[in-house]
Amino acid sequence: MKGNALIYRTLLHEDLKDVRTRILDECRRIPETIRRPVDLLIESGGKRLRPALVLLSSHLYHADRSQAVTAAAAVELLHTATLIHDDLIDQAAIRRGVDTLNATWSPMATVLAGDVIFSQAAKVMARDENTVLMQRFAETLETICLGEIGQMFGRNGNLPSIDSYYRRIYAKTASLFSLCMETGPILAGCPAHTIARSRRLGRLIGEAFQITDDVLDLTGSMSEMGKPVGSDLSQGLATLPVLMYAREHPDPRLHAVIVQRANGAILHDLIDDIRQSEAPQQALALAESHAGEALVLIREHPETPYRRALEEIVQFAIERRH
Amino acid sequence: MKGNALIYRTLLHEDLKDVRTRILDECRRIPETIRRPVDLLIESGGKRLRPALVLLSSHLYHADRSQAVTAAAAVELLHTATLIHDDLIDQAAIRRGVDTLNATWSPMATVLAGDVIFSQAAKVMARDENTVLMQRFAETLETICLGEIGQMFGRNGNLPSIDSYYRRIYAKTASLFSLCMETGPILAGCPAHTIARSRRLGRLIGEAFQITDDVLDLTGSMSEMGKPVGSDLSQGLATLPVLMYAREHPDPRLHAVIVQRANGAILHDLIDDIRQSEAPQQALALAESHAGEALVLIREHPETPYRRALEEIVQFAIERRH
Repeated sequence: MKGNALIYRTLLHEDLKDVRTRILDECRRIPETIRRPVDLLIESGGKRLRPALVLLSSHLYHADRSQAVTAAAAVELLHTATLIHDDLIDQAAIRRGVDTLNATWSPMATVLAGDVIFSQAAKVMARDENTVLMQRFAETLETICLGEIGQMFGRNGNLPSIDSYYRRIYAKTASLFSLCMETGPILAGCPAHTIARSRRLGRLIGEAFQITDDVLDLTGSMSEMGKPVGSDLSQGLATLPVLMYAREHPDPRLHAVIVQRANGAILHDLIDDIRQSEAPQQALALAESHAGEALVLIREHPETPYRRALEEIVQFAIERRH
Repeated sequence: MKGNALIYRTLLHEDLKDVRTRILDECRRIPETIRRPVDLLIESGGKRLRPALVLLSSHLYHADRSQAVTAAAAVELLHTATLIHDDLIDQAAIRRGVDTLNATWSPMATVLAGDVIFSQAAKVMARDENTVLMQRFAETLETICLGEIGQMFGRNGNLPSIDSYYRRIYAKTASLFSLCMETGPILAGCPAHTIARSRRLGRLIGEAFQITDDVLDLTGSMSEMGKPVGSDLSQGLATLPVLMYAREHPDPRLHAVIVQRANGAILHDLIDDIRQSEAPQQALALAESHAGEALVLIREHPETPYRRALEEIVQFAIERRH
């Protein structure tokens, strides 16, 4: 199943077009010099999963369409801003198969580009004039930043626990997915328990999505992923398949790579051994179980094309190959 | 007149204490490792001018005190976040006499520290549940970022015009002062023309303040300013006194320093000549005229200690020596 063949692409075609127009319109004050690379990032074939989730959750709860489009634009801008600073912090050179901003720009210009996109995100989100949504938006930004800080300063000479892995992917991915999925019921003025349930659904989709991503980082190929294989591990980042491998293989190379940041042959041999172990499958089994829980929550809704599109996204999250 | 002897310090003592408590309380989720330098920045004897302006404008218009304290905390956090990224971008080593974050931290940690403070600012501002204020807050952040971008990319091989100098200091300083001064009438639900008038007052105070700052950067001493003399010019930044000097002295060293970024003896001689010219006084005369306009607007209010404190801040803006 290819990302661009998913139902939501056609079902939300008009909505997503409006989101894109909204983003370009809001960013018009950004000068040409700094906008071209930003446009590239926004246009470079991302899956638009997050705005799609905002729109689908809004359709499920019959929220106002114009407010949903605005919130979806804000979420995509927030996501773009965090990617820009993340890539700078990780010194990543390639994202979605194209050069990152920091690969071609000075760090200073990259910081500013991220900041200005943050400001656009806040500006767009404020347009919905929904104070609950504004608060959740700011809290999500806080969670994402604190997660990055934890990742930078949290190394303590040990392999991380599976709990701390889940905290990290919540901050990095699932918190924003949660925000996407709660946006619909918030805009529709639903009661707190409905919002909480939709929020939980977002978290489950995000976890399934990120675990699959982390497995693909180890088992995929450079050409499929648009970035080097094992890039997390080469940065000393122990993801779920690595932690699954570590549980059953007390391998001194893990400590060397993750704590002492060894690379070269040690790193590549370790990646090969993890790829050939049962660990990636075990991690995927967890992703599948989160996806299964998510599907149960989705199927509480009446059967509509929007529900169907959401089910398909959950399947895609765990079945995709890049 | 010393900044710490100003009336507002005693008049707003309780309010400012509550702002500080609010900031520390909101930032409690930030881990120790990253919070100590941030605490230092927040505690390091800043004049708290911006929160004071928020509080004074709120008293003038009888806004809710608790909402005013919250907005003042948000504004101080926003200001702190922009300082962190500014110092990184300018590669400044010293602020308020102490090392900047970027002087001791990696650029990556500094980016994150700024981001997390931005997120706190947005979170605190959202607590006021005032959508107009949220929108103005986001727009001000946008203006500040776009100003930084203009400063980084806007060099075109010429000296800037005085107009472009005013645009730059609006983005850098006066936009946030405007936000501070419009917060009171916004929270008090005043009509649009009242908000616009208070906003204009903030702009005038900010311009008077920044022009004076720019003059002091040239005419002050290292020990008074807590940073090297002529630091703007040494970064190729032409401030108002420099532009005033350029108008009357067609000096090739200006082009060398500002466009070609010459330093050493050329830079130091040029700084000396500008200091001894009439240009600093001419720039200060403009600052005084903005301050005079500001005082006219302030004196439309009934005479209260809050009005008196505001008048004194305007005097301080143009009379201070550091």
